[in-house]
Amino acid sequence: MDFKIRAATKEDCKDVSRMIMELAVYEKMPDQVKISHEGFTVVGYALYFYTYSTWKGRSVYLEDLYVMPEFRGNGIGKGLLSKVAEVGKKKQCVRLQLSVLNWNTPTRDFYAAKGAQDLTVSEGWHFIRFDGQNLDNLANEAPKD
Amino acid sequence: MDFKIRAATKEDCKDVSRMIMELAVYEKMPDQVKISHEGFTVVGYALYFYTYSTWKGRSVYLEDLYVMPEFRGNGIGKGLLSKVAEVGKKKQCVRLQLSVLNWNTPTRDFYAAKGAQDLTVSEGWHFIRFDGQNLDNLANEAPKD
Repeated sequence: MDFKIRAATKEDCKDVSRMIMELAVYEKMPDQVKISHEGFTVVGYALYFYTYSTWKGRSVYLEDLYVMPEFRGNGIGKGLLSKVAEVGKKKQCVRLQLSVLNWNTPTRDFYAAKGAQDLTVSEGWHFIRFDGQNLDNLANEAPKD
Repeated sequence: MDFKIRAATKEDCKDVSRMIMELAVYEKMPDQVKISHEGFTVVGYALYFYTYSTWKGRSVYLEDLYVMPEFRGNGIGKGLLSKVAEVGKKKQCVRLQLSVLNWNTPTRDFYAAKGAQDLTVSEGWHFIRFDGQNLDNLANEAPKD
């Protein structure tokens, strides 16, 4: 199957937004409901940004990687992942990092097959989040300047 | 004990760099060796940046939080954490996120006491990393434009 990996444009926003919803459904997070689409040509997306390690310097972080179910198995996900790695290397990143859900074994296997380390397993890193009232409480207790 | 939370300046780089090394030693990562310091007045630091969630928008990510051992228990770590939360809220962030090592129970308890969720426990998120040869291999396999 022929496909092309390219940077998104403003015109892709509708397609990308549709696939953000599809990814949410795949990840079994509720309150992500109705999807309808027809005649699409954009069938996957990768969303990334840069982070910073005080030990290693700049890293690239892959927030979302998604390929529509009917187009999987054609190397599109691999193409998107490789492209983000290439972009990161060009920007002097020494790491490409991302997060994946424990139950999502097809995706965990996909990354492992490409040589990724699972740092939660090997080093014991946990993800911590403040949001909602907890975040408000923290912010309100900040020392005054 | 009196302390002041403030944004770092260029002049703080030497102190911050010293504490980056101290944090590495605390986190039991090797090849972080010799430290010497005297007459410091900067005794802790927080390093953060912004990330992006396609579901929730902008988040603030706390990469490092450190207080020198002899100054712990005075609310300095709490002050730094609260300040980052305040800065994040001012920038419209709806989440403050960070990572912590499994064995580091004092720190995990510290965050939990302030209401943080452990997403690795509650939702099963794992941290994945490509680096070194694996990252090079990925980048070299990127589809040509």
